[in-house]
Amino acid sequence: MSGRPLDVLEAALEDVVTVTLKDGTAYYGTLAGYDQHMNAVLEPSADAEDAVGDLDATAVEDTTIIRGDNVVTIQT
Amino acid sequence: MSGRPLDVLEAALEDVVTVTLKDGTAYYGTLAGYDQHMNAVLEPSADAEDAVGDLDATAVEDTTIIRGDNVVTIQT
Amino acid sequence: MSGRPLDVLEAALEDVVTVTLKDGTAYYGTLAGYDQHMNAVLEPSADAEDAVGDLDATAVEDTTIIRGDNVVTIQT
Amino acid sequence: MSGRPLDVLEAALEDVVTVTLKDGTAYYGTLAGYDQHMNAVLEPSADAEDAVGDLDATAVEDTTIIRGDNVVTIQT
Amino acid sequence: MSGRPLDVLEAALEDVVTVTLKDGTAYYGTLAGYDQHMNAVLEPSADAEDAVGDLDATAVEDTTIIRGDNVVTIQT
Amino acid sequence: MSGRPLDVLEAALEDVVTVTLKDGTAYYGTLAGYDQHMNAVLEPSADAEDAVGDLDATAVEDTTIIRGDNVVTIQT
Amino acid sequence: MSGRPLDVLEAALEDVVTVTLKDGTAYYGTLAGYDQHMNAVLEPSADAEDAVGDLDATAVEDTTIIRGDNVVTIQT
Repeated sequence: MSGRPLDVLEAALEDVVTVTLKDGTAYYGTLAGYDQHMNAVLEPSADAEDAVGDLDATAVEDTTIIRGDNVVTIQT
Repeated sequence: MSGRPLDVLEAALEDVVTVTLKDGTAYYGTLAGYDQHMNAVLEPSADAEDAVGDLDATAVEDTTIIRGDNVVTIQT
Repeated sequence: MSGRPLDVLEAALEDVVTVTLKDGTAYYGTLAGYDQHMNAVLEPSADAEDAVGDLDATAVEDTTIIRGDNVVTIQT
Repeated sequence: MSGRPLDVLEAALEDVVTVTLKDGTAYYGTLAGYDQHMNAVLEPSADAEDAVGDLDATAVEDTTIIRGDNVVTIQT
Repeated sequence: MSGRPLDVLEAALEDVVTVTLKDGTAYYGTLAGYDQHMNAVLEPSADAEDAVGDLDATAVEDTTIIRGDNVVTIQT
Repeated sequence: MSGRPLDVLEAALEDVVTVTLKDGTAYYGTLAGYDQHMNAVLEPSADAEDAVGDLDATAVEDTTIIRGDNVVTIQT
Repeated sequence: MSGRPLDVLEAALEDVVTVTLKDGTAYYGTLAGYDQHMNAVLEPSADAEDAVGDLDATAVEDTTIIRGDNVVTIQT
């Protein structure tokens, strides 16, 4: 149940995550990568049903790099 | 009664905390992890009655990473 | 009468302080800790009469970590 | 399918990317360069049909340096 | 007539200064301390007539730490 | 066609560039210098016809230092 | 005609400069000092006619430290 934030991201690789941004938008997709700034890479998920958290999140349609300083929350 | 901010977070691990964000929202959950940027990981709490502080806080429904630069206060 | 900002915080430990934030809110409580980023820990004060400065400040009701980048002023 | 954010940018060199900015605008063009801050250089693309992602993105008409701290997402 | 910004602050110690903040407010008081981030400590001034610059500045009533990232100008 | 952002700036020295800022304004002039923060120095251009990109950009009338953290794009 | 931003500031010492800030205000005065963050010190100018650039700039009336992160442009 425990873990530091980047460890939780590491464990979430290849899983579907929902990323909520400061502008109020949210994206979900398969977490393909991240770095220490919480920059993240989302890939389209094969299963759109996998979205977690925010019901209004948008599925990414292409490989999408999200710059970490826009991130509010990442739900795994 | 005393302690530096990160020591207080360390002591709050596995406890329910309420995190208030710059956008005015607030989340509560069990503190599962944190780092030196005040990035935090909240887990759903078994006991919804445990919320502290802001009565309008929302219980997290999934493991949720909160990026530290959004945080205003963390109540333990 | 003189002192660097962090020295003034060190001297204010266990005293009641009022912290004003960028969103216009203000909190007061006993200063239980701080760090070099001006992250601060406030504890509920036994004596609500101790508030300094902003008359509209809210007493903290729980141990509250305030992230330093929200702070405008700390009155001691 | 996996990769850290800067690795994904490296792999996208010479490809058309769409960069969405914090002010809500979006640009697309051929990714000619980037650095560790996600500063990016876009060149006009020979094939305007190559735009990915945001349908409202604007094609760059000159070599355009985008400062990384404005970037929300880069779609490849 | 010359000097680097922190040298000017050093020379202004024990003098009354007016600090204008990003939220449009301004405070004046005796400069009791500062650090390299332009965090500053103001003390109430014995002579309210000493205010410099902004006529709408408010005299500090307690020892007040001002976090540097809020500062727009310091008039000495 | 390729190059890292600062290499592109280096190559643009003595050329006319258009710098668009976060406040929506844009300036053009001859790029006389820059540094790693994308701080830039623009000089008035002898040929006002040289503006690139944004048609609403303003020609600088004096040597103008632009602080990098305001920059959105630089068109060369 | 060329120079890095801080070199241009160094060359402008003792000259009148106009500093435009993010809040839309502008100040002019004699540049008495600066540092690597573009913090600047302006002194009242003996010759108010020396203002450069923004016609709406205000002459500083006291020694004024301007914190660099507010600066948009400095015209020399």
